[in-house]
Amino acid sequence: MFEQLSILAPGLLGASLARAARQRGVASRIAVWARRPESRLKLKEASWCDAVHDTPEEACTQASLTVICTPVGRIPDLVRRIGPELPRGSLVTDVGSVKSQICREGHHALQGKAHFIGSHPMAGSEKSGMDHAREDLFERRPCFVTPLEESDSAATERVVAFWRDLDADVMTVDPEKHDEIVAHISHLPHVLASTLCSFLGLKDADWIKYGGAGLRDTTRVASGNTEMWREILQQNRAEILRALRAYQDELQAFQAALANGDDYLARHFLDRGKTYRDQL
Amino acid sequence: MFEQLSILAPGLLGASLARAARQRGVASRIAVWARRPESRLKLKEASWCDAVHDTPEEACTQASLTVICTPVGRIPDLVRRIGPELPRGSLVTDVGSVKSQICREGHHALQGKAHFIGSHPMAGSEKSGMDHAREDLFERRPCFVTPLEESDSAATERVVAFWRDLDADVMTVDPEKHDEIVAHISHLPHVLASTLCSFLGLKDADWIKYGGAGLRDTTRVASGNTEMWREILQQNRAEILRALRAYQDELQAFQAALANGDDYLARHFLDRGKTYRDQL
Repeated sequence: MFEQLSILAPGLLGASLARAARQRGVASRIAVWARRPESRLKLKEASWCDAVHDTPEEACTQASLTVICTPVGRIPDLVRRIGPELPRGSLVTDVGSVKSQICREGHHALQGKAHFIGSHPMAGSEKSGMDHAREDLFERRPCFVTPLEESDSAATERVVAFWRDLDADVMTVDPEKHDEIVAHISHLPHVLASTLCSFLGLKDADWIKYGGAGLRDTTRVASGNTEMWREILQQNRAEILRALRAYQDELQAFQAALANGDDYLARHFLDRGKTYRDQL
Repeated sequence: MFEQLSILAPGLLGASLARAARQRGVASRIAVWARRPESRLKLKEASWCDAVHDTPEEACTQASLTVICTPVGRIPDLVRRIGPELPRGSLVTDVGSVKSQICREGHHALQGKAHFIGSHPMAGSEKSGMDHAREDLFERRPCFVTPLEESDSAATERVVAFWRDLDADVMTVDPEKHDEIVAHISHLPHVLASTLCSFLGLKDADWIKYGGAGLRDTTRVASGNTEMWREILQQNRAEILRALRAYQDELQAFQAALANGDDYLARHFLDRGKTYRDQL
């Protein structure tokens, strides 16, 4: 139970966690800040928050736990900005999908004052914005909590408990391991879907009308917000490149099997792929 | 309107087209053959067929239109097998997803006796088998009809009319163009999904539990029947290899942009991908 939960930049994730926290009685008070004045006006009507502030600093002066829900590129600056206003010993986390840089910079910015412990709930949706927020968005969804070796373990425990109270399946890993994992299971699939679409976009425009359910599913993520994804690619560049190179070895081995007419080997790739997919 | 529609090997597609044809009064009689005795027993209970035969030859002796619904690898042999039994001037088509080889061999096998005009309704599903058949499976779904230059145009027109009567959106293209199109919009996406899964299957088995909706959608097709897909890859090898090589140029250009820190260019790929995907 937190005295005050402060949510900076509530979109789909931030508004969902406010509603989930309210429903479950996780915080006595919920304060919010949104960058756009029209969002702040709308937030004043929302039953799931108690106070709407004009600046992120004001929203955090009494926060027990602050959750930053901006795109990943803005998180470190925002941590530095609120740092001086935070109550001593309070907690700050975020919901960004890349962790190494954010956790190092966040920890450094608050050192000796408050605790930055990164989080990454894997509960997005192709729909964005607080209008699509849902109390159950995090239920039984994976959520990474990514402390540094030097992070305060009691602080980590409190952040873990917060996500558990929202019924998320919490895993604690270090930020580098997190970034390696998501480079493989989230960023690489996104790169393949986006480049497949950019490639097909160069072909005869008529072909698009023959696309079936398979093509639609395979490429769905490519319709996500491209600026958000550019920031993710930028922040997780090294791990994504490593995953991409290793994946291309697999793709080229498959291509060689096909080119050589080695159907036994080609089938072996398909079978291994199916075995993995059937476990998902 | 056909006097007799004969369906060889009714699975999801064959049973769906029998039900759709029955519902719409497209054929006076529907005859079927299935390879497995237990399937034939079950077919005898089906309200959507009038006669169940023990051999494909028997099922076709009075066929006005025969539709072959086996996996692509078995279609040419089956055309050769039924050829001598077919009524003179009758029509034969199929529902295979690769067309060049099947159309050439089918045309050659029936020449001067009956007409082979290939079809490819893009109306699959991850569910297979006649139990999942639906009258509306082809409604507003793309369906290729792929005559050769030397095909009889009246025969082509009758096959086109058959699919239109089932409310499919019919496009007529030559078999080689068809194979180029599906290599890009169906087989390449499948190869990427399968190799992504076979690649991820080599990684830490724990990671699979962090897979979100994006990974699940992107890889859904990889859970398809691998023997069916091996046959498709084999039959459309040349076009798939061509598409795969061209796609890898795109992927490597993206990788170079990322490696060079050229975020403007990386974003450009994402934007082009989104523009394409948003049209799907």
